[in-house]
Amino acid sequence: MTAFGVEDVVQALQAVRQRWREGQHRSLDQGERELPDREALADIVGTLKGVLFPMRLGPPNLRQETENFYIGHALDASLHALLAQARLEFHHKARHGPRDHDAIEARALAVMRDFAAQLPEIRSQLDTDVLAAWQGDPAAGSVDEVLLCYPGIQAMIHHRLAHALYRLELPLLARVIAELAHAQTGIDIHPGAQIGGSFFIDHGTGVVIGETSVIGERVRIYQAVTLGAKRFPRDANGHLEKGGARHPIVEDDVVIYAGATILGRVTIGRGAVIGGNVWITQDVPAGVRVMQAESRNEAVATPGVSP
Amino acid sequence: MTAFGVEDVVQALQAVRQRWREGQHRSLDQGERELPDREALADIVGTLKGVLFPMRLGPPNLRQETENFYIGHALDASLHALLAQARLEFHHKARHGPRDHDAIEARALAVMRDFAAQLPEIRSQLDTDVLAAWQGDPAAGSVDEVLLCYPGIQAMIHHRLAHALYRLELPLLARVIAELAHAQTGIDIHPGAQIGGSFFIDHGTGVVIGETSVIGERVRIYQAVTLGAKRFPRDANGHLEKGGARHPIVEDDVVIYAGATILGRVTIGRGAVIGGNVWITQDVPAGVRVMQAESRNEAVATPGVSP
Amino acid sequence: MTAFGVEDVVQALQAVRQRWREGQHRSLDQGERELPDREALADIVGTLKGVLFPMRLGPPNLRQETENFYIGHALDASLHALLAQARLEFHHKARHGPRDHDAIEARALAVMRDFAAQLPEIRSQLDTDVLAAWQGDPAAGSVDEVLLCYPGIQAMIHHRLAHALYRLELPLLARVIAELAHAQTGIDIHPGAQIGGSFFIDHGTGVVIGETSVIGERVRIYQAVTLGAKRFPRDANGHLEKGGARHPIVEDDVVIYAGATILGRVTIGRGAVIGGNVWITQDVPAGVRVMQAESRNEAVATPGVSP
Amino acid sequence: MTAFGVEDVVQALQAVRQRWREGQHRSLDQGERELPDREALADIVGTLKGVLFPMRLGPPNLRQETENFYIGHALDASLHALLAQARLEFHHKARHGPRDHDAIEARALAVMRDFAAQLPEIRSQLDTDVLAAWQGDPAAGSVDEVLLCYPGIQAMIHHRLAHALYRLELPLLARVIAELAHAQTGIDIHPGAQIGGSFFIDHGTGVVIGETSVIGERVRIYQAVTLGAKRFPRDANGHLEKGGARHPIVEDDVVIYAGATILGRVTIGRGAVIGGNVWITQDVPAGVRVMQAESRNEAVATPGVSP
Amino acid sequence: MTAFGVEDVVQALQAVRQRWREGQHRSLDQGERELPDREALADIVGTLKGVLFPMRLGPPNLRQETENFYIGHALDASLHALLAQARLEFHHKARHGPRDHDAIEARALAVMRDFAAQLPEIRSQLDTDVLAAWQGDPAAGSVDEVLLCYPGIQAMIHHRLAHALYRLELPLLARVIAELAHAQTGIDIHPGAQIGGSFFIDHGTGVVIGETSVIGERVRIYQAVTLGAKRFPRDANGHLEKGGARHPIVEDDVVIYAGATILGRVTIGRGAVIGGNVWITQDVPAGVRVMQAESRNEAVATPGVSP
Amino acid sequence: MTAFGVEDVVQALQAVRQRWREGQHRSLDQGERELPDREALADIVGTLKGVLFPMRLGPPNLRQETENFYIGHALDASLHALLAQARLEFHHKARHGPRDHDAIEARALAVMRDFAAQLPEIRSQLDTDVLAAWQGDPAAGSVDEVLLCYPGIQAMIHHRLAHALYRLELPLLARVIAELAHAQTGIDIHPGAQIGGSFFIDHGTGVVIGETSVIGERVRIYQAVTLGAKRFPRDANGHLEKGGARHPIVEDDVVIYAGATILGRVTIGRGAVIGGNVWITQDVPAGVRVMQAESRNEAVATPGVSP
Repeated sequence: MTAFGVEDVVQALQAVRQRWREGQHRSLDQGERELPDREALADIVGTLKGVLFPMRLGPPNLRQETENFYIGHALDASLHALLAQARLEFHHKARHGPRDHDAIEARALAVMRDFAAQLPEIRSQLDTDVLAAWQGDPAAGSVDEVLLCYPGIQAMIHHRLAHALYRLELPLLARVIAELAHAQTGIDIHPGAQIGGSFFIDHGTGVVIGETSVIGERVRIYQAVTLGAKRFPRDANGHLEKGGARHPIVEDDVVIYAGATILGRVTIGRGAVIGGNVWITQDVPAGVRVMQAESRNEAVATPGVSP
Repeated sequence: MTAFGVEDVVQALQAVRQRWREGQHRSLDQGERELPDREALADIVGTLKGVLFPMRLGPPNLRQETENFYIGHALDASLHALLAQARLEFHHKARHGPRDHDAIEARALAVMRDFAAQLPEIRSQLDTDVLAAWQGDPAAGSVDEVLLCYPGIQAMIHHRLAHALYRLELPLLARVIAELAHAQTGIDIHPGAQIGGSFFIDHGTGVVIGETSVIGERVRIYQAVTLGAKRFPRDANGHLEKGGARHPIVEDDVVIYAGATILGRVTIGRGAVIGGNVWITQDVPAGVRVMQAESRNEAVATPGVSP
Repeated sequence: MTAFGVEDVVQALQAVRQRWREGQHRSLDQGERELPDREALADIVGTLKGVLFPMRLGPPNLRQETENFYIGHALDASLHALLAQARLEFHHKARHGPRDHDAIEARALAVMRDFAAQLPEIRSQLDTDVLAAWQGDPAAGSVDEVLLCYPGIQAMIHHRLAHALYRLELPLLARVIAELAHAQTGIDIHPGAQIGGSFFIDHGTGVVIGETSVIGERVRIYQAVTLGAKRFPRDANGHLEKGGARHPIVEDDVVIYAGATILGRVTIGRGAVIGGNVWITQDVPAGVRVMQAESRNEAVATPGVSP
Repeated sequence: MTAFGVEDVVQALQAVRQRWREGQHRSLDQGERELPDREALADIVGTLKGVLFPMRLGPPNLRQETENFYIGHALDASLHALLAQARLEFHHKARHGPRDHDAIEARALAVMRDFAAQLPEIRSQLDTDVLAAWQGDPAAGSVDEVLLCYPGIQAMIHHRLAHALYRLELPLLARVIAELAHAQTGIDIHPGAQIGGSFFIDHGTGVVIGETSVIGERVRIYQAVTLGAKRFPRDANGHLEKGGARHPIVEDDVVIYAGATILGRVTIGRGAVIGGNVWITQDVPAGVRVMQAESRNEAVATPGVSP
Repeated sequence: MTAFGVEDVVQALQAVRQRWREGQHRSLDQGERELPDREALADIVGTLKGVLFPMRLGPPNLRQETENFYIGHALDASLHALLAQARLEFHHKARHGPRDHDAIEARALAVMRDFAAQLPEIRSQLDTDVLAAWQGDPAAGSVDEVLLCYPGIQAMIHHRLAHALYRLELPLLARVIAELAHAQTGIDIHPGAQIGGSFFIDHGTGVVIGETSVIGERVRIYQAVTLGAKRFPRDANGHLEKGGARHPIVEDDVVIYAGATILGRVTIGRGAVIGGNVWITQDVPAGVRVMQAESRNEAVATPGVSP
Repeated sequence: MTAFGVEDVVQALQAVRQRWREGQHRSLDQGERELPDREALADIVGTLKGVLFPMRLGPPNLRQETENFYIGHALDASLHALLAQARLEFHHKARHGPRDHDAIEARALAVMRDFAAQLPEIRSQLDTDVLAAWQGDPAAGSVDEVLLCYPGIQAMIHHRLAHALYRLELPLLARVIAELAHAQTGIDIHPGAQIGGSFFIDHGTGVVIGETSVIGERVRIYQAVTLGAKRFPRDANGHLEKGGARHPIVEDDVVIYAGATILGRVTIGRGAVIGGNVWITQDVPAGVRVMQAESRNEAVATPGVSP
């Protein structure tokens, strides 16, 4: 007998798993893991950061005159590692029917080629994000400080990589990469969101940007801003309808201050300014400033005592 | 002489520690560390995740046909590691009086047996949480994505383990496990909170659930929801009264949207819906929808210029 | 040819970097990395935590009777490691002009000596923070639990170290240390903020404290509190003016509840209490309690159905 | 230009590799590594030692009451890891012709099953080796000391595993495992050697046992003993003839003292004793003691001075 | 069913272990590991090397002005780690009878104190060994090179530590430490051997020094020298008699060249020189040079052909 | 007081170090470590092996089509790491006089360039060594097995790198690299030895090749062969004369069988064959076979009993 009744717990856990697997119509007793791996993706993204910004996010002992060697090697290694994860996702997606292994392999290879080809454009866009942060924050000391320190930039590096994978029909890999940034920064951007250049998120904790959001150029948002869905329509069986445009469109040059909540497929017009903590569920015309009604500032002040 | 005056700093730091220890009535010069270790608990929880969900959170090369071997070994190892941490907490709790080593040892062993026996039920409950997320989020692609990616599920795995330890009178271990989830997800659930099955937290950053909260079945909450205390009564000496029911009761099938704040020992009745950013300090009857007063939506829109 | 066109991607990435470097007037093809390293600073801060609190945040096998040996060795090693990072920042700052290597070296050494000499005072202040948490939270079981578990304390350890470096004109190192805490706790304190003793942040996720904030003694704040800037003045060229006092002054004994937002160079007078979610842009006199106007609690309750 | 002319060295190294690959008729520019990996095999053997001797070479925190869980998990994991290495060797062997992937896979699986089934017998034989060491060395304090400390036992664990793989036609994996022991112990046993039970090698440094050696039961040898080949016949083209019995047969109960050299397909008869440093190239009858001729002891002693 | 029949192998291995444990009169199904741990001892010895030679074998970033801090901390940590291993050996030794836990604990503590107190003398002796190597090898460039590179010095650091433990009745710990050096250097010194100061082993591979050897001051030996036992007396039951002086005494200032073999309790007198490959089983008077008889040089040279 | 009197031991160790440093005329209380680091060199050599043989000793996931990227990056990184070690050695060498930092730096850079430029030739020579092993050992299955498994090849990779550094006046780095191979393989080649192409060492344990040895093309040696010095002349002060040709010259196509000892500046003529265990202190003409005199085979065989 073991000290803690391990044998019994093992049996009981097996019974629970069996129930779950039956409920989910999964294989009951055979097979290896077929899901992408969070740790592996964290390593891949870490390497891709060095590929994109070798002298600032690459290995500390890198020298500029040989950075292409590093990039070539690190890129090739991380693409092959990502290929393995892509295979897992494609197999997982195909798990309910017959699998065409050759087709999956061909597709995974094609996807990796496409993804690799997009990296220079991704770096280009990220450069505009870095400049936007440097220009938009009076506390920023240099573009290097922005890249090293700003959680908004970390979140956007993850997002621009994740969004490319999302469009290449690898939504699970994309989601894991997005959640790695969420855990690190408190910024939760669904990989489906479309975000233009020169995007700046300041502070960032609590930001939520939903799957079908569309954001233009030179938009600036602050901590705890939500671009969310207003309601979740259900189908005839009472199940949620998945997909469907349900998050805001934010046009160019909009600023959204901290804590503002914008819900539903509304449009915030070009150059609009949304004040802190404002709650928006309807379209806002271009160029308009939306602030809290006066009652919001009528906080009641009463003489008190320090606690 | 050292370059940075290290000897002097060492002496000065010792003087500060001495003052603290005198103030705290601690031993001044002897003894080894008697506190649980955050890193050790992080490892233990990491292993227990694999014990609970072997094919999705266990080691990447695990195969289903031999998962019981893995579970048995990993469970036994992590229970013994947890036993060592439990001993530390029991000794720490007993530090002000005479210690009965045999009694502490017997109790630590008994607690581990109880904890192990609860694991199958914990897995069962977590299965309902996973299903609730899958059914409650239109962006969720599969139950596997939920388990791999959703911070709310990570927080609930930690919480259900931590709550079991909290009830077994290991509140410090429980708290460390809760804070590990808080750091990772931005979701801060006190291990004392009682939470029913099929609980779903979406996005999650900024959620706070207080120690004496009671949550029913099939409750759904969003980011930045607070279930907090309203006031902190003090005793005759002006010290806070510790313990005492001071957080909300949330009945079955309640939905609480993002940013809502519910304070004090109030009851949110079965099936109620609490709108985003709403501030509640009184009971809400069953089946009622509480939304912001109109003034909340009277945001003032004025023509502006883009910044 | 490589499988994924790596050679082409390498060339295209080089073209993008070239554009960036030209835009930033950086060297195009030579030189080694000259930026501080986030990982190195994380290690240094991790060691300094053990130096400040050897028996609770130091190595698990430390014994009190020999803690000074540990402190002396760990302190010396981490100061030399920090010296290397300080050199990098001073060189980076001087990158646009001729560099006086000897002057940089002398200054880096002097700064390290100053920083080391401040550590005992930093520990002293942190002791008051720990006591404040223990006295201010009814859920706190012991001062040890506070130090082990409370994210607010972790954030303050980082802040008090970072603030010392900020004052010693190492703002980039300071900022990285602050962001390490932000990533871990969701608490974003700019290293420039001046914060008195006995400061307590409960829960903490979403707290933002701006660069020029000034906080007195015995202040207590809750999650999602913002001490922010109200507007960002621009100079004649339309660029943001950097620097300049633009964040609140919070006097002694103030309490600020969750979600409150205080913007601009306003003063919250001694002993004032700011209610949850309140929005403040003007001075608050000493001793006053500011709560939401009634309309805030006029949430509209309508009979509904559970979703 | 790089500091050290790296680009030129890269080109020159490529030219050398090209020459080698042409000379070896290898692919010039494509393909991934197809050789077994020394590090991977070191990990596998390390785990198999724990499978064979769980309480003495397994993880330090193992407990006897749950050792079967550990063994099942570790065995399964290491067999699958070994399977991957076996695939590499079979593919490498088939590299010059068309490859039947399915046949290789089927064979690799079959080989792993056979190998696994031999492990209990291998443990049984190793138990006799441990007892032989304990009984044969006056300095041995316990059977546990033998297993923990004696390099001869480490070498035999490697050998008995490697020999099983050698017989299963995986000579390259076998050789790597043998060389891992050689590097650790200085004992060089070719995996082809057939060695009976209760075999004891004392000290061991410099022992060489050739590929076609045959050793009986209860044989004991000391450091620097060689069981080697006498000559290497060449074929008509002047190439060495590979394979062919060319090393000694050592019958049961033979003892061979340190530094003795036995060369060629000779037979050392049952119970014979071979003295230290003796050089043997002919059969030795059973029961005979072979010592150095007297002249060996006629060392010339002359009055000298200490150097 | 598992792919490789793991369940069956697990059962069969259990049966083999059961047979062994019955044969060895061990517990059949309970208990944790009670043997010292090779990895733990390797770490301890690695740290003690830094304690003894801080600026040459300590951490690379150590500075002389603070070396005492490092030594104090590292010494304390390694003594406590060694204490844990000592406890294991004392418990293992007492496994066949009733155990007096308090007595074992007291003894382990006392032994550690004694061991610690011997470290300065051990360093002193090692300094003489380093000087002997520097003076004795024309290829040695500096005393630092000797300490960094010479395997004989590494072996002697291990030996002088192991011998201290051997005398403190911890022969198993001592043996593991000796075997760590043997694996690294090919030099096999039994921890029981008594070795005077200024001892120099050049090259070292294949050296064997037996348990009861006694070596004087300023002795120099070369690779493959054996100081061994001549015969192994057995008791009435046919078992080897353990213990008993059976290895050579080598007096001061002796030199023994490569490959020489000296067997039995013979005495090599002060200042004697033993030539390469010589075989000695009798006393050698002081000051005498022993070389191979002429016949050793009568190698037969015959005209040959290059192979 | 500490449990083990650590403070006293620290003081006593300091006194011993003080004595040593006074005796060695070293600085008594200041300064950082100025010696090359064994671990750093082990990493560098490990990387250089991958640079030389990317598809067989490089990272397991490397692909041939991108190997140049890897080589360029790994080579640049390891050359810069080696540069740091070279600086340490040059500074150490200059420790007794005034140091010209700029001259040392310039020289270290020049040496690295030279070393890098020799790598292609080193790879070329190693290719001949691999072929020699494959052609010379009937047990070798393929050239890949040779490179993966043969300790003689590992030793030669280290030697050819170390010899290049030795000639570039970095004898200490060279020696550390040689000792890394010695520890791994039991083959002790002084980095000063000059060794031609197609050199094959079989088995290798116990081989010693001295500093001034000169070895021609296509030489083959076996385990325990010594190419040593015969005597060590002393100067007028009784100190050893350092340097000076004192080891054998071995001409092309010589074979030396196991255990042979060749001492002094003798010449073994082209194509000679030296038999096992032969002892040579005089020249051997070209083409001659030297075997043991008959008496060596007159081992005395007497009827005995098995032990």
